[in-house]
Amino acid sequence: MPNTHDDEQRIDAIRFLAIDAVQKANSGHPGLPLGAAAMGYTLFSRHLKFSAADSAWFDRDRFVLSAGHGSMLIYALLYLTGYPLTLDDLKNFRQFGSKTPGHPELHHTPGIEVTTGPLGQGVGNAVGLAIAEAHLAATYNRQQKIVDHYTYCLAGDGDLMEGVSGEASSLAGHLGLGKLILLYDDNKISLAAPTDVTFTEDVCARYAAYGWHVQNVTSDDGNDVNAIDAALIAAREDPRPSFIAVHTIIGYGSPKAGTFGAHGEPLGADNVKKTKEALGWPTEPDFFVPDDVLAWWRELGKKGAPAQDAWNATYGAWKGANPELAAEFERIRDGAVPPALPWPIFNAENGNVATRDAGGTVMNAVAEALPELVGGSADLDPSTKTYLKGFGDFQPGNYEGRNIHFGVREHAMGAVANGIAAHGALLPFTATFFNFLDYMKPAVRLAALNNTREIFVYTHDSVFLGEDGPTHQPIEQLASLRATPNLTTIRPADALETLEAWKFAVAHEGPTAIVLTRQKVPFLGVRDAAVARGAYVLHEAQDDEPELILIATGSEVSLALDACKLLEAQGTATRVVSMPSFELFLQQPEGYRDSVLPPTVEARVSIEAASTFGWHRFVGPRGIAIGIDHFGASAPAAAIAKAFHFTPEDVAKTASGLLAKT
Amino acid sequence: MPNTHDDEQRIDAIRFLAIDAVQKANSGHPGLPLGAAAMGYTLFSRHLKFSAADSAWFDRDRFVLSAGHGSMLIYALLYLTGYPLTLDDLKNFRQFGSKTPGHPELHHTPGIEVTTGPLGQGVGNAVGLAIAEAHLAATYNRQQKIVDHYTYCLAGDGDLMEGVSGEASSLAGHLGLGKLILLYDDNKISLAAPTDVTFTEDVCARYAAYGWHVQNVTSDDGNDVNAIDAALIAAREDPRPSFIAVHTIIGYGSPKAGTFGAHGEPLGADNVKKTKEALGWPTEPDFFVPDDVLAWWRELGKKGAPAQDAWNATYGAWKGANPELAAEFERIRDGAVPPALPWPIFNAENGNVATRDAGGTVMNAVAEALPELVGGSADLDPSTKTYLKGFGDFQPGNYEGRNIHFGVREHAMGAVANGIAAHGALLPFTATFFNFLDYMKPAVRLAALNNTREIFVYTHDSVFLGEDGPTHQPIEQLASLRATPNLTTIRPADALETLEAWKFAVAHEGPTAIVLTRQKVPFLGVRDAAVARGAYVLHEAQDDEPELILIATGSEVSLALDACKLLEAQGTATRVVSMPSFELFLQQPEGYRDSVLPPTVEARVSIEAASTFGWHRFVGPRGIAIGIDHFGASAPAAAIAKAFHFTPEDVAKTASGLLAKT
Repeated sequence: MPNTHDDEQRIDAIRFLAIDAVQKANSGHPGLPLGAAAMGYTLFSRHLKFSAADSAWFDRDRFVLSAGHGSMLIYALLYLTGYPLTLDDLKNFRQFGSKTPGHPELHHTPGIEVTTGPLGQGVGNAVGLAIAEAHLAATYNRQQKIVDHYTYCLAGDGDLMEGVSGEASSLAGHLGLGKLILLYDDNKISLAAPTDVTFTEDVCARYAAYGWHVQNVTSDDGNDVNAIDAALIAAREDPRPSFIAVHTIIGYGSPKAGTFGAHGEPLGADNVKKTKEALGWPTEPDFFVPDDVLAWWRELGKKGAPAQDAWNATYGAWKGANPELAAEFERIRDGAVPPALPWPIFNAENGNVATRDAGGTVMNAVAEALPELVGGSADLDPSTKTYLKGFGDFQPGNYEGRNIHFGVREHAMGAVANGIAAHGALLPFTATFFNFLDYMKPAVRLAALNNTREIFVYTHDSVFLGEDGPTHQPIEQLASLRATPNLTTIRPADALETLEAWKFAVAHEGPTAIVLTRQKVPFLGVRDAAVARGAYVLHEAQDDEPELILIATGSEVSLALDACKLLEAQGTATRVVSMPSFELFLQQPEGYRDSVLPPTVEARVSIEAASTFGWHRFVGPRGIAIGIDHFGASAPAAAIAKAFHFTPEDVAKTASGLLAKT
Repeated sequence: MPNTHDDEQRIDAIRFLAIDAVQKANSGHPGLPLGAAAMGYTLFSRHLKFSAADSAWFDRDRFVLSAGHGSMLIYALLYLTGYPLTLDDLKNFRQFGSKTPGHPELHHTPGIEVTTGPLGQGVGNAVGLAIAEAHLAATYNRQQKIVDHYTYCLAGDGDLMEGVSGEASSLAGHLGLGKLILLYDDNKISLAAPTDVTFTEDVCARYAAYGWHVQNVTSDDGNDVNAIDAALIAAREDPRPSFIAVHTIIGYGSPKAGTFGAHGEPLGADNVKKTKEALGWPTEPDFFVPDDVLAWWRELGKKGAPAQDAWNATYGAWKGANPELAAEFERIRDGAVPPALPWPIFNAENGNVATRDAGGTVMNAVAEALPELVGGSADLDPSTKTYLKGFGDFQPGNYEGRNIHFGVREHAMGAVANGIAAHGALLPFTATFFNFLDYMKPAVRLAALNNTREIFVYTHDSVFLGEDGPTHQPIEQLASLRATPNLTTIRPADALETLEAWKFAVAHEGPTAIVLTRQKVPFLGVRDAAVARGAYVLHEAQDDEPELILIATGSEVSLALDACKLLEAQGTATRVVSMPSFELFLQQPEGYRDSVLPPTVEARVSIEAASTFGWHRFVGPRGIAIGIDHFGASAPAAAIAKAFHFTPEDVAKTASGLLAKT
């Protein structure tokens, strides 16, 4: 059945808002909105559960535009359906401070569910959204279903070339996330070229291999509304995650249709005009939508309100029947931390404890009181110690499980965590070896850009992981995290600082990376607020008058204390500062910072088993940064410490040499 | 046909050397060598073209152990076949300074082709090795074939879960790399768990979808030598890349067989003994190999010598027939740079030029004289300007093409480049937007660890890329690169510094990252050796007596000059330092460094449109680092400059304020 004239008008309204906005900005991507408009129309008009008046409705369907460069597709849809996005907002596409940035940004525009643009991320986010839905549904639904929505994702060729989407899709297939539906804008064109120069695999067969339900919509160049609709109906009914390849033409209707020239630059005024002529749209004015078409879209946008009312009624009934569960649900939905948590107590009696073990103890102590805490590791939980004991595995048939086995898929792990965080009501954690931060960095960066509450646990945090050698030993990773905006990085020195790191992370509105040792470290004494201020005087010099300050983080703090003993035995008044977090320290008032690192004490030595990059800010021009500005070595940790001069004697000698010079 | 007793003995020799070494080190991975020993035996004894006496024989087959944690498999094979690796080396497994680090390292152990351990990388490296072979064969073979070898790769479940292997395998399938053969150690176990908790996709179907020839060896738990042999024969004959899934049992023969407990920790002395008993091997002494078995292996290791002799004869005939071609081949094989290259000349007449454009001009100017320069972009060459015009595309049927279309697969691009570099005779370059460095960072790190000559081009290097917004605007990427050991990062200020960056990179024995602008920048005048010293005085203050130093990189150098004009108009004697490379500057003698940044001039302002992390080393405690310690924004570049205070007026104001304080 061909599209009706009305269908065509509503689809074209998306198209021309999009290309007019790109043309006005003189920047952007017209190709996707032109090619995928019918998909957007079919999804929004016949399937997506949403209410334009309340973009925060908890049980709305989630729609992820993984191909975020096609942002004008979603902005046009949000405007047309009556989200709080005006025509002026569209006219300000890609302008400073507008609600319509070049790529969709979470927390920036109502109706945007996740930040996309870096390709492939959206697919991982969608898997995370679907995991969150499945987990919350399994955990909170009773007689009434208060969580019961689909996650839709629209992805392009670029998304599906990226490894992260493959990792996430493999995981989704394993997990059997039946309410996840991926629309593939199969236009055979990417930025630089047709895909036939690089991407000729059988994508549908690959998704079938992942265990997905796969359909192909080949009719009418992706404009066949009824065919797309039928595929979406079948996808919703199938118990597996669904993949729908829709064969489209990039830049449909324009003179550049089917070429990579349509992908990422404005069509040009003349081509915009020709496109309007070709599709029978008035060439003037810009941003034109016929009144009846706009009215129809706006009516559509209101249709969700009764559905939301019905859900509210269901929710009320559920809440009445399950008051305690509802109190918990509303707390986690609102992102509130319980007023008191059963944090463990560490003291000297625990003996030497690896901070990874302390981290595992902390997580497990609060896991029952924090049902929102869900996550897992990239196939390393016996090593990262992040398994939540007694809380089950998130697996098909057991979606209430809170431990997610991400597999050796660090990148998808990060993208999935971002999706879980974006969903709301859950606090995701991930874990891997610190060196493999690199594998998931694009996702960590987006967590930072989103400024969502997530906890990234990294263990085996230095060359002192030992025998696995330089391929596994982080060097530059701390610098990489510390230079990333919005991210708080904490490298605790002992069990107590690990506890404080977790306290901070659970309460912090933003992402936190907690960097932990493989090896045991001593307990450094009972202290207050050891992490919140970022750095503090752990050991004061005699008479409070230090000649020398040793600054260290993590496992090197106990080394600093040992070196301090040697220095004090030589008569050097030495202060030891533990600095678990650069970021938190730099947020302190100048007075506090100067009290920890008095400007008058210029003899300073920092000690950290990592790149010294960034340390000169604290040691100053007359100080010395002891670090490792080369790759590590495969050997037992003690041998590495000796070879790399991370011994109390070596540190004391370096410090003494510095004092002799100054 | 069952294995002979001799087969079993030779296989068991691998197994027991491996588990004895792991046990002695009390660290390592016994599971893979036990399970995959028959694969190693079959490959080395019946297929691999190698000569133990000359691990550098150019036309040897390459073998990549992507599952690098199983390093004792390859170390045992290298020892048995008589490479320069002694029994003492095996006994020093994972000890400081030994030739047998925990994971195999390129340039560290003869016979190791690439550094592996970070999972999935080896698959990408193998694709790179196969690309190098195909390109060199297409380019240099004439009547005689001087390049004609296979690339074998052994990968485990973890490798194949990683996205990078999927990206690389999709590319290999597209490219039809028929001489690439991947053995999949299909043991259904990863570090933390059986794969049935996370990895239940149909891997063989996935590889078929990539366009590979796929076989399954299911007999005898992966110990059926003849079945593996038959599969390898079929793989070599098939014109597609081949995937052979061999169903194995991790930790075969040991009490821990088939469990993840066998993966990554020593079996324990008792279990080692039980394993030997179970397989009928003498329980003592450790590291025992029966004389006849060792003799057989050593004989095998010598078999390559006649093959190499034959190749030498072929090579001689080829060289005689093609003397000029041979001269070129020998030059690139030896990694020698031509004494004179037709570098372009830039001057003020070029006007304002984006450094990405200057980079493209430089590459194309020298491309003909540097046939070893091959590479491409991750679907961005119209933007990165890295296409080598007139040198064709590396595509099926046109392997002499020098432009590789990597697709939107940054991570595989990096891993493939590492493989090309490891192959020898080629100088790979890659290109993408700077922000997407993050997607390929694990591969860049391995390039740094390998210290191989590779050139990473990153364009769109700051918020000044404009409208694409914060998802595409790098902030922390410079810090991330600068903190990475062995890597030289250069951010040129204009076309001339871009030229100098390329000159450095082509000659440098190690990886170089060249970070380039999207936007145009002015030409800053004719200078000598503007990059080689890392930083230099671009503009001197009046009377050579600066009160103030402005230090900048890249596009901010011209901003510094403009600010300097305002400051000088106010009577402030201002020096402007261009600092294209931290690393190169820090390698200069102290005297030079002090001449550029005199310790007496403490009023210093650095200007870089990126994280300020790391800059305090140069501005000192009394200086100011102007940077961007937050995420960017979607807007035209000029609007961003204004909003983020990157204008001459703002910089001059900040500098004046600093002077007023000091």
